[in-house]
Amino acid sequence: MKKVEVIGLSGFPAVKKGDKIGDMIVRVLRKNKVELRPKDILVIAHKIVSKSEGNTRRLKDVKYSSFAERIGRETGKDPRFVQVVLDQSKKIVRIKNNHIIVETLHGFVCANAGVDRSNSSNPNEVVLLPENPDLSAKRIRERIKFLTGVDVAVIISDTHGRPFRRGVINVAVGISGLNPFRDYRGKKDFSGYVMRSTVVAVADEIACAAELVMGQGDEGVPVVIVRGLKPSLNGQDARQLVRTEREDIFR
Amino acid sequence: MKKVEVIGLSGFPAVKKGDKIGDMIVRVLRKNKVELRPKDILVIAHKIVSKSEGNTRRLKDVKYSSFAERIGRETGKDPRFVQVVLDQSKKIVRIKNNHIIVETLHGFVCANAGVDRSNSSNPNEVVLLPENPDLSAKRIRERIKFLTGVDVAVIISDTHGRPFRRGVINVAVGISGLNPFRDYRGKKDFSGYVMRSTVVAVADEIACAAELVMGQGDEGVPVVIVRGLKPSLNGQDARQLVRTEREDIFR
Repeated sequence: MKKVEVIGLSGFPAVKKGDKIGDMIVRVLRKNKVELRPKDILVIAHKIVSKSEGNTRRLKDVKYSSFAERIGRETGKDPRFVQVVLDQSKKIVRIKNNHIIVETLHGFVCANAGVDRSNSSNPNEVVLLPENPDLSAKRIRERIKFLTGVDVAVIISDTHGRPFRRGVINVAVGISGLNPFRDYRGKKDFSGYVMRSTVVAVADEIACAAELVMGQGDEGVPVVIVRGLKPSLNGQDARQLVRTEREDIFR
Repeated sequence: MKKVEVIGLSGFPAVKKGDKIGDMIVRVLRKNKVELRPKDILVIAHKIVSKSEGNTRRLKDVKYSSFAERIGRETGKDPRFVQVVLDQSKKIVRIKNNHIIVETLHGFVCANAGVDRSNSSNPNEVVLLPENPDLSAKRIRERIKFLTGVDVAVIISDTHGRPFRRGVINVAVGISGLNPFRDYRGKKDFSGYVMRSTVVAVADEIACAAELVMGQGDEGVPVVIVRGLKPSLNGQDARQLVRTEREDIFR
């Protein structure tokens, strides 16, 4: 019997610019009477990371271009919001059915460049993705190791929509201390067949497992422990999860 | 503290045509000394379901068309394998970089119509998706209820690749006793913002959580319990998870 536990920490306080997420996590762990173990994986909703880093924008301060205005009209979105999205984008991938799909400055392909109106304590404020989510994950991991002595892995997550299938699911946008893939190529499956192409994006699956207790609503749980896996601690990052435009057959 | 457990059942025997998956699961539960609880969600790898239903093909019996031969040459695949894929397809969505992405007879958009060469006890045999995965899920659920008295939810899963991101992740291809979505539209998030568009594909996230203990290799665990969620038992099916071509902006 193999068992993985997904543990959502209750009572995480509201986060504001300058807050130290690592310190907050350690305090909330104590309140929840949960002790970290080596190889625990902490999944952290990107919003609290961005807010602590001040990576937010106030819509009323945004000056928008006529291009943003045009896209806003076409998609039914606030042109100031569109401007923030464009500022976070390297490339527009598709604009259709009121969706704006872009390649972000990091290289992620997602709606609205990951810019989010919700979960902001100020309705006038929007929350961006962290500027460098892998670095944010590394810093939080190092801080937690400093405070507790325990080396955990850290995933920073965001919910993304996807082609072909309805609904959003959680994905890893930042990673530290975890190989995002489990690679079965060349291994035998349980019937003896040598698998040629199975590489599982385990970091995204861990993000999904965590979302099950995170929720998005009032009862939001921004930090979740996934326990019982044996993450290999290879120094890869979340960008490895992103297809290049050349290898992507749907761009 | 919110907790979800992901429990992989050890020692599942090899499955052949005519085997009763529900009965096998109940026997394996006993061997693992695990008792089912109401609201448990069973995630079952589609391969054992297809094999029990005889939904496999022997490549040496397949006669292929010159179209299959041409695609085989273009993608480096066995033309007999390509023929099986085409037979399971409603439409070819894209052929590029050695990938054959189709819309299956069920409506799923995935590589090779979900036809799989691996995990088959016979290297000459390929495993298809179940013909009607929602119905398969319903039958297994009813059989387990009959044998144990416990009403669980059932997800039949498969691993799919995806645009934009590398690696495969598990998704739900058949569902019984579970609403595949968690709908936050109109609810307030924890900052008081009313969310307008957040619908989470929770069935896919549950499939992902299960895959973490399923693995794909020698140690394959085809049946996993996800415990601690409160699935709403709406009678929806896995086809709800599939975008129509009209709403899909990447087809």
